[in-house]
Amino acid sequence: MAKTFTGVHWMLATPFTENEEVDVHSISNLMEKAYSSHCEGVVVLGVTGESARLTDQERQIITKEVIKNANGMSVTVGTTAASTKATIIYSQEAEKLGASAVMISAPPMGKPNLGALLNHYEKIAECIDIPIVVQDYPQTSGVHMPPQFISQLAEKIPQVIYLKLEDPPTPTKITAIKNLTGDKLSIFGGLGGVFLLDELNRGSSGAMTGFAYPEVLVDIYTNVASGNVQEAENIFFKYLPMLLFEFQEGIGISIRKYALHNRGLISSYRVRHPGPELSQETKNEFHELLAKLEVPY
Amino acid sequence: MAKTFTGVHWMLATPFTENEEVDVHSISNLMEKAYSSHCEGVVVLGVTGESARLTDQERQIITKEVIKNANGMSVTVGTTAASTKATIIYSQEAEKLGASAVMISAPPMGKPNLGALLNHYEKIAECIDIPIVVQDYPQTSGVHMPPQFISQLAEKIPQVIYLKLEDPPTPTKITAIKNLTGDKLSIFGGLGGVFLLDELNRGSSGAMTGFAYPEVLVDIYTNVASGNVQEAENIFFKYLPMLLFEFQEGIGISIRKYALHNRGLISSYRVRHPGPELSQETKNEFHELLAKLEVPY
Amino acid sequence: MAKTFTGVHWMLATPFTENEEVDVHSISNLMEKAYSSHCEGVVVLGVTGESARLTDQERQIITKEVIKNANGMSVTVGTTAASTKATIIYSQEAEKLGASAVMISAPPMGKPNLGALLNHYEKIAECIDIPIVVQDYPQTSGVHMPPQFISQLAEKIPQVIYLKLEDPPTPTKITAIKNLTGDKLSIFGGLGGVFLLDELNRGSSGAMTGFAYPEVLVDIYTNVASGNVQEAENIFFKYLPMLLFEFQEGIGISIRKYALHNRGLISSYRVRHPGPELSQETKNEFHELLAKLEVPY
Amino acid sequence: MAKTFTGVHWMLATPFTENEEVDVHSISNLMEKAYSSHCEGVVVLGVTGESARLTDQERQIITKEVIKNANGMSVTVGTTAASTKATIIYSQEAEKLGASAVMISAPPMGKPNLGALLNHYEKIAECIDIPIVVQDYPQTSGVHMPPQFISQLAEKIPQVIYLKLEDPPTPTKITAIKNLTGDKLSIFGGLGGVFLLDELNRGSSGAMTGFAYPEVLVDIYTNVASGNVQEAENIFFKYLPMLLFEFQEGIGISIRKYALHNRGLISSYRVRHPGPELSQETKNEFHELLAKLEVPY
Repeated sequence: MAKTFTGVHWMLATPFTENEEVDVHSISNLMEKAYSSHCEGVVVLGVTGESARLTDQERQIITKEVIKNANGMSVTVGTTAASTKATIIYSQEAEKLGASAVMISAPPMGKPNLGALLNHYEKIAECIDIPIVVQDYPQTSGVHMPPQFISQLAEKIPQVIYLKLEDPPTPTKITAIKNLTGDKLSIFGGLGGVFLLDELNRGSSGAMTGFAYPEVLVDIYTNVASGNVQEAENIFFKYLPMLLFEFQEGIGISIRKYALHNRGLISSYRVRHPGPELSQETKNEFHELLAKLEVPY
Repeated sequence: MAKTFTGVHWMLATPFTENEEVDVHSISNLMEKAYSSHCEGVVVLGVTGESARLTDQERQIITKEVIKNANGMSVTVGTTAASTKATIIYSQEAEKLGASAVMISAPPMGKPNLGALLNHYEKIAECIDIPIVVQDYPQTSGVHMPPQFISQLAEKIPQVIYLKLEDPPTPTKITAIKNLTGDKLSIFGGLGGVFLLDELNRGSSGAMTGFAYPEVLVDIYTNVASGNVQEAENIFFKYLPMLLFEFQEGIGISIRKYALHNRGLISSYRVRHPGPELSQETKNEFHELLAKLEVPY
Repeated sequence: MAKTFTGVHWMLATPFTENEEVDVHSISNLMEKAYSSHCEGVVVLGVTGESARLTDQERQIITKEVIKNANGMSVTVGTTAASTKATIIYSQEAEKLGASAVMISAPPMGKPNLGALLNHYEKIAECIDIPIVVQDYPQTSGVHMPPQFISQLAEKIPQVIYLKLEDPPTPTKITAIKNLTGDKLSIFGGLGGVFLLDELNRGSSGAMTGFAYPEVLVDIYTNVASGNVQEAENIFFKYLPMLLFEFQEGIGISIRKYALHNRGLISSYRVRHPGPELSQETKNEFHELLAKLEVPY
Repeated sequence: MAKTFTGVHWMLATPFTENEEVDVHSISNLMEKAYSSHCEGVVVLGVTGESARLTDQERQIITKEVIKNANGMSVTVGTTAASTKATIIYSQEAEKLGASAVMISAPPMGKPNLGALLNHYEKIAECIDIPIVVQDYPQTSGVHMPPQFISQLAEKIPQVIYLKLEDPPTPTKITAIKNLTGDKLSIFGGLGGVFLLDELNRGSSGAMTGFAYPEVLVDIYTNVASGNVQEAENIFFKYLPMLLFEFQEGIGISIRKYALHNRGLISSYRVRHPGPELSQETKNEFHELLAKLEVPY
């Protein structure tokens, strides 16, 4: 299976109306922004997309709308579920709707069981023909995947060619995995892009994250890819305060949506209850920081 | 809102075929057993029902089949979801399909926030007309509800008239809640029935649990309700080894399904992967224990 | 290293006075009870001993008093600490004071790292000459040890000849470990003895637990060891309600101390704050259950 | 009780020799650096000090050495323990040795119980005469303290005049607490200083954190305190990459010690096993970042 993903794959927020209905219209705005920012792809229905807060029907509506507006960009669909069977059903649906790949995190396991987890990915892989992005995000899944296990996944399952790595310290883990797998696995950073520069320097292939200013991520990636390390650093360090501000634990998605709304991309910045609401002070801090950065975008 | 639930409400397992498809036919067997065992109701799509491992479509199919076979028993439908909105959608669907009540646990919350949780239940209650069974199960929800909070729920939300209490030590918590709420809230035990007797003595109204021999639970409840405490104790103590065996942490649902299969109620004892499989030794222990108890059922 | 431990090793509670000072005098009572109950050994400074709630000086005072009153019984001392270095210091002190063995659980690890954990046990073993009881208790340590890892510990470290297994379902895990290690490792059950019978049938060598009536545990063990399985079952089933009552999650140590106080073994049943206090209702339930069992001890 | 703490209180690492013994000599180097950097105080035996990895005897040796070298700076001693009694013993020892204040986090609680936690702090306060720094760090304590509870602590307990706030998003929580307590409580940020600027802007009184370049923290604080917000921002943004690099989850203390060693302040950068070791790549990244920042210190 050819590894074609590189660069920035923007994690899409799921826009809602003020009364928390899926706002289909705003999805096309987000897709246009992804395209005009030169993202190579998008990822839909991840944590940033509040996928756990959606019904299956809503997930399907959103997936269709995203794929309809792909405009040549790859579309990776999050299909993580608590059972192998449900993950397969979601993944097959995604493939049928035209997804380029599926992103799958470990299901919740009462006790960590790497044998059962390997089997989980194997069974899924047997039922689909598109690549699998393994998501390594122990903070939400509760499952720790050692580098040896990730290497085993890549060895045994042809479709496992991408890894979304969100197990800090990510630069250290990238090297540990690269030492085992070589180029078998293309690794993408996440976690709001806060460690993007070190990740790229360690050999990551790009980022799958939802920072509200994807142009910044693309600029950093492009400069690193073309050898302009100094320029990449300048951009990264300039925007680091905003990357970090947006990634604040507990209110990250809310800030991100507020920023997207502020850019005119989504009609409302509502997250689904009981997700957190922003205080006025946090909004003020956002605007001050934005002014300070003289964001040209 | 009149509190009509008492006695045993059997938590239904979700039967699957060998290849993990929903086995609709076996559902009617389970419902017949609930009826013939004199359960007052059933609860579908709880943890025992592996609800997290199902798609929305499957959840609907199962709910319909259960309600179709209710035969006068009340049907409580688990509608817990990660957002208020999705919980409302599931709850409204359940009501429309004829559910007697919905059972709702706390959604996952990054940080416990009892104000947001109260609001969660309030918003749901505004959208449905059937009672709410609040499920207090911190081990799976990650959210701790102090007795004061539960009392507040019952005070402020007319539909909150039932509590499924699974926060050990349950007898102690029953008394703490009763001291605050009096009869405003009918409390039902869970946790496999392992503390059923003490719970009833502390004033619980019955049990909502999935022990594979619901006749035993009914016998214990009925004897306590009619004042035959000694007989209730005899039955409870006799079956305690089986209650405990079935409730083994990590493999409880698997044993339960194996027992239901052994009774001829479900065609396969499969749990959805990556749920645990039973070893031959555990199956042997089950059969030996069953023989020893001379189960008449 | 010769494996000499079998049978019942009583986990000692740490008796306190009403104002929470260590009550040295009551320790000798507990030791006499262990001896007269035919326990083969005792274990001090485990979870039951509230070891985390003690200062180092108190730990040493308690250890000395227990060893002084050993009367030929083996004394295993809990020396779990958050660093390898501190565990070594505690273990060397215990050995110097005359401990027969040390019991060591996994230290807290930000991320599970079985390589570092193996190294932890290796470094400790290099510094002492007495056997190590590996404690496998993920609920308190947060670290899961697969059977393969436990087998590796036993292979690589001569002093690792005992395992205190508290990772449910324990009977299933005993078989899994036995299949890998054969007789290299003697396994002891814990968890209040609630699964003692199945554990012994699966090949455990005894129990290390703190049930307030150790005579019952000894009776069960002795009967199984001498082939009187039926009698062992009768005793186990008779006392199962008490085993379970005492092991109630969240208040187990408090009930245990209340029972020990009720037997006249400790002067006060106080646990160190903020440990839980018993309500009057729970005390009543204890006395009723005790009366019902006609405990002869 | 007069609130005299402001500014930067440097969290001290505990220096070890290569074989993990406490390195007393390096402590005086750290104290000189704190002094020459114009820190108002130091905090010893916190998470940065690997306090959980020390024996009581080592804790005392370290405390004495720090106080001996205080040179007029305040010394806050971490005395968190798993029981109220042990916390009191440690706190009284610290007071006797000359500590200016004690820092106390919530003890581990099986179930969160704010009533018992209030009582914990009350009992401690009755036994000492120096101020208490309440540490709010749910990631390590497992206990969440709502702003209302923190306000209650400050209302009811005269010694509770300082809060070390490490429950993100910290700026949001500072405002929430300030709205309830006004100036009753002086709040200090932690978490590596990564949100120091926003925290100060929200009304925090300073920082208690262990960043290896305390001069930077002092510069930022001093500029904010004297109204030079623009200069504070310039410094903060310049060093943010290093603040963030050092605070990497899972290896933060190791990087910090490496940096302290690189500054010639401690003889070895060893953390106690099983704490993490740095890879060569991480060390390289540190040196590159340091060169890039042209750190003048």
